[in-house]
Amino acid sequence: MSKTVKEIAVLVNGDVVGDGDIRIERIRSIEEAKTGDLTFVANPKYREWLASTEASAVLVPPGTEAAGKTLIIVADPYLHLGKLLAEFYPEEVCTPGIAEDTFISAEAEVSPGVTVFPCVTVDRGAKIGRNVVLYPGVYIGRHVTIGEGTTIYPNVTIYRRTQIGCRVIIHAGVVIGSDGFGFARPGVGNEKIPQVGYVQIDDDVEIGANTTIDRGTLGKTWIQRGTKIDNLVQIAHNVVIGENSVIVSQTGISGSTKLGKGVITGGQAGLVGHINLGDHVMVGAQSGVHEDVPANQVVSGSPHMPHRHWLRVMASLIRLPDMRKTIQDMQKKIEELEKRYD
Amino acid sequence: MSKTVKEIAVLVNGDVVGDGDIRIERIRSIEEAKTGDLTFVANPKYREWLASTEASAVLVPPGTEAAGKTLIIVADPYLHLGKLLAEFYPEEVCTPGIAEDTFISAEAEVSPGVTVFPCVTVDRGAKIGRNVVLYPGVYIGRHVTIGEGTTIYPNVTIYRRTQIGCRVIIHAGVVIGSDGFGFARPGVGNEKIPQVGYVQIDDDVEIGANTTIDRGTLGKTWIQRGTKIDNLVQIAHNVVIGENSVIVSQTGISGSTKLGKGVITGGQAGLVGHINLGDHVMVGAQSGVHEDVPANQVVSGSPHMPHRHWLRVMASLIRLPDMRKTIQDMQKKIEELEKRYD
Amino acid sequence: MSKTVKEIAVLVNGDVVGDGDIRIERIRSIEEAKTGDLTFVANPKYREWLASTEASAVLVPPGTEAAGKTLIIVADPYLHLGKLLAEFYPEEVCTPGIAEDTFISAEAEVSPGVTVFPCVTVDRGAKIGRNVVLYPGVYIGRHVTIGEGTTIYPNVTIYRRTQIGCRVIIHAGVVIGSDGFGFARPGVGNEKIPQVGYVQIDDDVEIGANTTIDRGTLGKTWIQRGTKIDNLVQIAHNVVIGENSVIVSQTGISGSTKLGKGVITGGQAGLVGHINLGDHVMVGAQSGVHEDVPANQVVSGSPHMPHRHWLRVMASLIRLPDMRKTIQDMQKKIEELEKRYD
Repeated sequence: MSKTVKEIAVLVNGDVVGDGDIRIERIRSIEEAKTGDLTFVANPKYREWLASTEASAVLVPPGTEAAGKTLIIVADPYLHLGKLLAEFYPEEVCTPGIAEDTFISAEAEVSPGVTVFPCVTVDRGAKIGRNVVLYPGVYIGRHVTIGEGTTIYPNVTIYRRTQIGCRVIIHAGVVIGSDGFGFARPGVGNEKIPQVGYVQIDDDVEIGANTTIDRGTLGKTWIQRGTKIDNLVQIAHNVVIGENSVIVSQTGISGSTKLGKGVITGGQAGLVGHINLGDHVMVGAQSGVHEDVPANQVVSGSPHMPHRHWLRVMASLIRLPDMRKTIQDMQKKIEELEKRYD
Repeated sequence: MSKTVKEIAVLVNGDVVGDGDIRIERIRSIEEAKTGDLTFVANPKYREWLASTEASAVLVPPGTEAAGKTLIIVADPYLHLGKLLAEFYPEEVCTPGIAEDTFISAEAEVSPGVTVFPCVTVDRGAKIGRNVVLYPGVYIGRHVTIGEGTTIYPNVTIYRRTQIGCRVIIHAGVVIGSDGFGFARPGVGNEKIPQVGYVQIDDDVEIGANTTIDRGTLGKTWIQRGTKIDNLVQIAHNVVIGENSVIVSQTGISGSTKLGKGVITGGQAGLVGHINLGDHVMVGAQSGVHEDVPANQVVSGSPHMPHRHWLRVMASLIRLPDMRKTIQDMQKKIEELEKRYD
Repeated sequence: MSKTVKEIAVLVNGDVVGDGDIRIERIRSIEEAKTGDLTFVANPKYREWLASTEASAVLVPPGTEAAGKTLIIVADPYLHLGKLLAEFYPEEVCTPGIAEDTFISAEAEVSPGVTVFPCVTVDRGAKIGRNVVLYPGVYIGRHVTIGEGTTIYPNVTIYRRTQIGCRVIIHAGVVIGSDGFGFARPGVGNEKIPQVGYVQIDDDVEIGANTTIDRGTLGKTWIQRGTKIDNLVQIAHNVVIGENSVIVSQTGISGSTKLGKGVITGGQAGLVGHINLGDHVMVGAQSGVHEDVPANQVVSGSPHMPHRHWLRVMASLIRLPDMRKTIQDMQKKIEELEKRYD
């Protein structure tokens, strides 16, 4: 792949500052870029590299200045980087076909155009849509449905009755539809509550490696359209996650909790069960959310509080030993004042 | 399935308030239930739905009132819900048999009545008990023993010498018996300490998806009878978990720590190594337990403290910026008082 | 295996105190050791067992005294325990060979001496070094290279282009090379950024069960020589971990963060993206690191601070309700003093 800066600017609808005829062969990070490379500044942290980068051109946001550098100015460099990466580094496409050593029930329905690698099991009653790709070691349980164009990476397990939409990407080691964690008289009898529900994953969802999503006790656990879930996330029975949410790695969401649209949780966040988070709520990393959060709020801390207040609490917390000392000093002074007065 | 309210009351040994002849076709959550459905109130949070639910009958605890509703009153609605779910929605049972494409060592012992799906490996010296179910992609290492009626879901890995009891349920992606994390001179030489022990899982344990349990360095890591472990839990070498404990998702338990009977840990709790938790200890979500906890205590926080004290600390923490302001104000007032006095 | 205390002392270059002719048959923990056993004291917590242990001999650090006990004195008992465990309990070695039911591309290169179990897939362009062991259910993606003597346990997934060094140990369920979590306009458009980089794992690394390592967006995610990673750890795109680091279970490291050599992170620690930790930094369990940490520092807390300061903060935190009470009392006293003065 080789394109001029001018050609690239057309692709991303950007403005060129500098020499539009320079040829670009590769895309590299600003720390590693050399002559012939396009690089980018999306995170402001990396602006300091602008002066010293050896890149032949840089994708930057409006308002960026860099004397002597060739720039392509776009509204959202990260978004447009994505488009250029797809152009410069197209993924190899699998050749459709069903390998010999697969175990597809005679009572399953498999659409044309699928790619099924060896060691895949598709149990009875399952329906696999057009152009689905199933990598080695994937297990598709009874009565599971998988929509068109979905890709499931190796060693994924989909339990019975799960419904998966179109263009979903499920990374290796994910488990969907396992039994919800429901036991009566916990710590005493631990009697198992049968989990008779299912999981529904809507279109365009992506699920990170080794994430686990339990099926509903009754009814469904539901991941709505466009939501992206990172690696090693735990989603319990009957959780609902609204459209276009972003659940960062190692987050845990307890049973029956409901998230609105566009909710973002930071890494290692924990949400208790049976609460509601409104649309576009943001939860800080390592936070513990213990009650409802209204729409558009940003919360942090464990237990959580409004993010701005949490910043003030943390700024005070680090001074707590000094505060304690000050209190002890004041106590003495007050005692002295009281003595003097008497 | 269809039963009258009266018939259901007999099954759960409950008392009917209202019309015992109503027919029940399904069980649904109180938010979704319609005519013909039985629903339940186990968590008090859902009591508010009682007045508006369209369910034909509701399973409730003693003392519940709901004018005009048909109720079945039982001591523990969640426990009895479990029994009714098993009655209304019996799980399909696998037809026993060993698939062709399995890899069972000639030196392994397999009892009658087992179900072995394709792509299962059973290594030499392993013993598989009666009516065990091994789903696709399960690996049973050398000299592993598995007791009667145990179910192992897809893509589970059981390392060498693990001993698993009867009626154990192991969800997809679980790893049991991996090397404990033991290295001499950590951060410098990282010399590996051979992990020559094993894991013992007793009867009636359930282990959630993608949970990991390391084998002992010497001797065993031991999960005792009736304990239930959620998804994505980490259990290190030589940990002992007493009977009927409940370990919620993403908990981590470090090496050689010992839990008594009926211990409950909240989600994302962390326990350091080489400590003891007494019987029926409860550990709050996201807590960090750094030293022994006597029996029956409830602890929270990181580092942990008694739960009641933690509630008071957290109530103060949120006021910390105000406290700091107050301290500064008081300092000024004291200075003024001192000046006035002089 | 049976050796005299004297013979063992020679193996570990230790000094015998007591009877060097005693025969040792086994190695057991100090809590379980009986006659004929060697045991050890590595963690000072277990020193209290010295007087009562029934072990025939104890491996101890210099300066240890135990009247009437036979001791072997070595500089680092844990390190030498490792050597003796390898001697007393040698692991069974797999017999090399490639099973019939494997799926190795005609365009892959496989060196002599490998062991490949059934249900292993090796995709086109992959290169497998000498004496590599691939357990059942392992998936090796396109153009992956694996160095000599590396062992990969069951159900591991290695995505395309990953480069793995020599003598690496990868435990069951690990996922290496999955897509980094990169989306433009998170919570709104969630447009996927193609992840066109790869993962490089250097020699002598060990990776714990169900850990996930994403590939670089551009360039590589890089785990350097001798680093040991525990179970259920999340390593995001473009992270670099320096030589001989130790990453304890359930740690999460966000994108583009760089760790020096010999860094140690405690369990459930979280590191934000785009920061640098210097050589030999230590991060406490459950800490949240939000900015650069210079070499050799020890940090704790979320957000992190120097460990010693964190200890003081935590000692004050537990007294916060008392501090609040004291402040209220002081306020009253000051008011009274002010009244008296007026």
